[in-house]
Amino acid sequence: MINITFPDGAVRQYEKGISALDIAKSISEGLARKVLAASVNGQVWDASRSINEDSSLKLLTWTDPEGKNTFWHSSAHLMAEAVEALYPGVKFWVGPALDNGFYYDMDLGDRKMAEEDLLALEKKMNELAKKNSEYKRQEISKPEAIQYFNEKNDAYKLDLLQGLFDGEITFYTQGGFTDLCRGPHIPHTGFIKAIKLTNIAGAYWKGDEKNKMLTRLYGVTFPSQKELDEHLLMLEEAKKRDHRKLGKELGIYTMDDDVGQGLIMWMPNGTVIIEELEKLAKETELEAGYKRVVTPHIAKENMYITSGHLPYYADSMYPPMEIDGERYYLKSMNCPHHHKIYAAEPKSYRDLPYRLAEYGTVYRYEQSGELFGLMRVRCLHMNDAHIYCTKEQFNDEFRAVNDMYLKYFKIFGIDKYVMRLSLHSPDKLGIKYVNEPELWKETETMVRNVLTESNIPFVEVKDEAAFYGPKIDVQIYSAIGREFTLATNQVDFSQGRSFKLEYTAHDNKAETPLIIHRAPLGTHERFIGFLLEQYAGKFPVWLAPIQVKILPISDKFQDYGKTVSQKLKKADIRAEVDDRNEKIGKKIRDTELLKIPYMLVIGEKEMNEGKVAVRRQGKGDLGVMDLDEFVEKIKTEIRDRSSEELAAAK
Amino acid sequence: MINITFPDGAVRQYEKGISALDIAKSISEGLARKVLAASVNGQVWDASRSINEDSSLKLLTWTDPEGKNTFWHSSAHLMAEAVEALYPGVKFWVGPALDNGFYYDMDLGDRKMAEEDLLALEKKMNELAKKNSEYKRQEISKPEAIQYFNEKNDAYKLDLLQGLFDGEITFYTQGGFTDLCRGPHIPHTGFIKAIKLTNIAGAYWKGDEKNKMLTRLYGVTFPSQKELDEHLLMLEEAKKRDHRKLGKELGIYTMDDDVGQGLIMWMPNGTVIIEELEKLAKETELEAGYKRVVTPHIAKENMYITSGHLPYYADSMYPPMEIDGERYYLKSMNCPHHHKIYAAEPKSYRDLPYRLAEYGTVYRYEQSGELFGLMRVRCLHMNDAHIYCTKEQFNDEFRAVNDMYLKYFKIFGIDKYVMRLSLHSPDKLGIKYVNEPELWKETETMVRNVLTESNIPFVEVKDEAAFYGPKIDVQIYSAIGREFTLATNQVDFSQGRSFKLEYTAHDNKAETPLIIHRAPLGTHERFIGFLLEQYAGKFPVWLAPIQVKILPISDKFQDYGKTVSQKLKKADIRAEVDDRNEKIGKKIRDTELLKIPYMLVIGEKEMNEGKVAVRRQGKGDLGVMDLDEFVEKIKTEIRDRSSEELAAAK
Repeated sequence: MINITFPDGAVRQYEKGISALDIAKSISEGLARKVLAASVNGQVWDASRSINEDSSLKLLTWTDPEGKNTFWHSSAHLMAEAVEALYPGVKFWVGPALDNGFYYDMDLGDRKMAEEDLLALEKKMNELAKKNSEYKRQEISKPEAIQYFNEKNDAYKLDLLQGLFDGEITFYTQGGFTDLCRGPHIPHTGFIKAIKLTNIAGAYWKGDEKNKMLTRLYGVTFPSQKELDEHLLMLEEAKKRDHRKLGKELGIYTMDDDVGQGLIMWMPNGTVIIEELEKLAKETELEAGYKRVVTPHIAKENMYITSGHLPYYADSMYPPMEIDGERYYLKSMNCPHHHKIYAAEPKSYRDLPYRLAEYGTVYRYEQSGELFGLMRVRCLHMNDAHIYCTKEQFNDEFRAVNDMYLKYFKIFGIDKYVMRLSLHSPDKLGIKYVNEPELWKETETMVRNVLTESNIPFVEVKDEAAFYGPKIDVQIYSAIGREFTLATNQVDFSQGRSFKLEYTAHDNKAETPLIIHRAPLGTHERFIGFLLEQYAGKFPVWLAPIQVKILPISDKFQDYGKTVSQKLKKADIRAEVDDRNEKIGKKIRDTELLKIPYMLVIGEKEMNEGKVAVRRQGKGDLGVMDLDEFVEKIKTEIRDRSSEELAAAK
Repeated sequence: MINITFPDGAVRQYEKGISALDIAKSISEGLARKVLAASVNGQVWDASRSINEDSSLKLLTWTDPEGKNTFWHSSAHLMAEAVEALYPGVKFWVGPALDNGFYYDMDLGDRKMAEEDLLALEKKMNELAKKNSEYKRQEISKPEAIQYFNEKNDAYKLDLLQGLFDGEITFYTQGGFTDLCRGPHIPHTGFIKAIKLTNIAGAYWKGDEKNKMLTRLYGVTFPSQKELDEHLLMLEEAKKRDHRKLGKELGIYTMDDDVGQGLIMWMPNGTVIIEELEKLAKETELEAGYKRVVTPHIAKENMYITSGHLPYYADSMYPPMEIDGERYYLKSMNCPHHHKIYAAEPKSYRDLPYRLAEYGTVYRYEQSGELFGLMRVRCLHMNDAHIYCTKEQFNDEFRAVNDMYLKYFKIFGIDKYVMRLSLHSPDKLGIKYVNEPELWKETETMVRNVLTESNIPFVEVKDEAAFYGPKIDVQIYSAIGREFTLATNQVDFSQGRSFKLEYTAHDNKAETPLIIHRAPLGTHERFIGFLLEQYAGKFPVWLAPIQVKILPISDKFQDYGKTVSQKLKKADIRAEVDDRNEKIGKKIRDTELLKIPYMLVIGEKEMNEGKVAVRRQGKGDLGVMDLDEFVEKIKTEIRDRSSEELAAAK
């Protein structure tokens, strides 16, 4: 018998050689029907594979990222089986799972595949799926594997085999299709109930444009038709909410070839949003006891050697400029400058925690192929701060930062989020991570404890820490369910020592502070990109670049329009008059398209009685109000940063 | 007879060969006693030199910069005469006038000069000055000049002669001292009534450290003892108000070798001032119809070739960074980025004037020897904006900008200022200035007309324009009378065309807008440096980093202190509690040193009655008030941006 430990800590005994699937069946048939794979001692395995020793076990279903991943990788095999059926002689390269689906690269020889061929392929896949063919795992020697693909005349798989060693090679077979594959896979094809092939593209073999162009076929699959339908609806909605499209239509940002790739220029409407976000951050941080600073965008090479950015972060930095015989770098992070401000005046324990905040602009080199709208850029305006504290203060400070995240989530209507605790990897100490094994353990434990104590949902990920300490990446989901990695919260036990930062402790001894790096609103670039999708461009009033448009029904009421506009501006409301000589219907339609929250229609009656006829974007007529009453109402909505609009946008 | 044209346009006839001094005498003996030199056809001459043809004439006195300059240069000769009397055989190099005085570089051989020797020198100078020795001009041939200094065995003057041509060499002699000199000089030494030798320093011959170290002797002189006394008082006050000293004491800014020279890091207290200034600018600009933008700090080389910054401004730019095979530059001005935002959406006459504002951060290369505190830096946060307008709109827009300057001057208690209209120089078209002679004339006239119509005091200066058009430099004087060049207001007829900026005019034709570049608050660096001196660090309440310090007279009242502090913070007042275990006297003294405007002393009586005992920095006790009353009072003072404190600081 072997001992199996479950995630809740329970231990049960089973026969040696039992599979995860059998264990699931022993619990309930219903559960077994959902099991896609299993995590055995932290490794993802086929659910049908035998377990021969005491192990920890987690059954993986569709709700686990690893479960989805396995599902989609198996779907790629199913797609390959269908392609081979319809395009005999096709050769396959690799077919991985993606964040949202899968693809397979293939060599169709002289044949072409077009959009209209996808329907037939989907049909074939559905047909094969219904056969409930098992994914069979087979360990195989390298000579046998070579012989198999030699016979198949498959140069691509032979090329893959070159990099593999005897003893680590496995084949997977479902139905009539066999592939060289590390696995794992789902139990059988019957799990795949809904299939959509989404795209055909070209892809150079091994990504090298000197090589042959292969056909890359993309697809996505689900355990039910309902989930596929929802996914397709989400994609359609995401297209409408595309931040690049909305960003242009609403005058939020622009880019220019003469300025350079990935360098956003914020237009007047985007700048209003920036300033409202900064106002929110400043208010919040002032209340939380932060002090603000402003630092330059460059510094000498030596500072980045001290900080460790050179060499650990060098690939993400811009190349240096040489001035007066010294090398200056554009900053990629604000921390070293903040450390210098910390060090500018002597500190005692009375000064700690010392919290320095700056909406700092940093420059990071990203490959031009990776740049994407506001999501991947080279110039980032970051909601940055550094908290210098004692070990005793760490828990409270780290928790306060987490609370600040949650406060912001509420304001922006973010109700789904996950925190990823990124840990170091011991084998990369001194390469990717500062070489302090004990401090890594200690700080990782501290962070884990705070998260556990605060009941915040989190997952742990190895080998994704910052070079100076563990970090939390915050992943949020937009109103249409898309995932964004937004913000980080990092612990740093390294730079305080590198920069010789000190404070005088109670016992008069010099101590090094711990440093928390945090950026709850992330960067303006990514966060405003997220907000464009979140609100579909229909910003809540407090964020809307123009909050009120005044629409006189004819030229006769332009003067009253100006009076109304002046009154609103005096109350700090962003208002404009539509003074064009257009019909009121067209004025309303145009304003709706610009997604301006409020329209005030004014004519004879409104002018004579000092009133306004109020329309809400997307909701229509709200009736006639005294101008003063409207001003009070909208001022309250702005002051409360009400996101009532979010419901309407959904 | 010749015709002499005076500055007011009047023309009078005089005998050929008459001197400016004689003309002054013919007007009044009192005037003649003040004439130091004369501007004849735009060239500064000895007042005693003969005028032989029809000329324009301006008599120069102490109130003219050229008059002062001549006075101080003549004082350098007087000093040299005194040095030669006390140190026979001394050799002189050059002795120019400075902005505030003069110096002479000299080779004393084996002798040394020390501080205590200056009194004897001053005495000698006074003695020589009283002789009323005339400064006699003598045109001399190069061989004769060489012979003179050969006989004197003066290698320095012989070296200077090498660079001069026959026909342009003049000697000046006063009393027993003769010098090779271009002139001009004041009529006689008797004008120099008050003398102060200020400093002795070493200076390498020709500024080259491989050469011999000469002695540089500094002095300053005045036409009356009263003016010297005032000057010395101002220097003493300037020392107390030194922005570098106050900047450190008050935690305003810091610099660090690892970051780099001329790169200011704004500490928490300085950042409060930055944010208050930006708030003022944003409010003012919003009301004036500006839109705000945010742009990156770098752009590709090509953009700066289009703008003309390369080559016209290349010397002031940082060297390029090469990314993806292209050269990127740190921006030295914000204009090109703003032009790109203008161009991002099509414009019609209805969109103009289009005003884009940004507190933009620019980088300018200054020689490290030129860097000085906040006054000469390499990273500048500029109160920048660009106004795109039609020719018809230019007058109103340019005047509105001037009015904005005056509004700011009032807020900051700047009651003395001069605008310098900087014009191009026709012989540098195509070299230093864009080659558009007609447009230069036209725009210079437009600007001159606005200034004249607005009754703004201004002087005209040739060859100091921006490369793209005429500009106004605004010079202001601090509370102790020191001059600062603060801000500029520039016209640009060139970049609109280079960037192909357009708007559709009434007649549907595409037109190029005129551009006004303006920066009324200059840069944070220079303006905050100015304000430190202006207020002697005693900022008015709205600008003060900490507005109120709460001083409990003993630990018993700490809780009430916190209550008071919370109440103030809720009212957006920057308050701190002095919770140290110190005597109240020490707490008051320490707070006075930090120049915090208000102190609230609290004890038993205050706590029981909900009151505070108010002290004003530098003024003492203002009596006991209800806390609510104090909050209202200080809120009003903050809202009004009252600069009452200025009077107290003077």
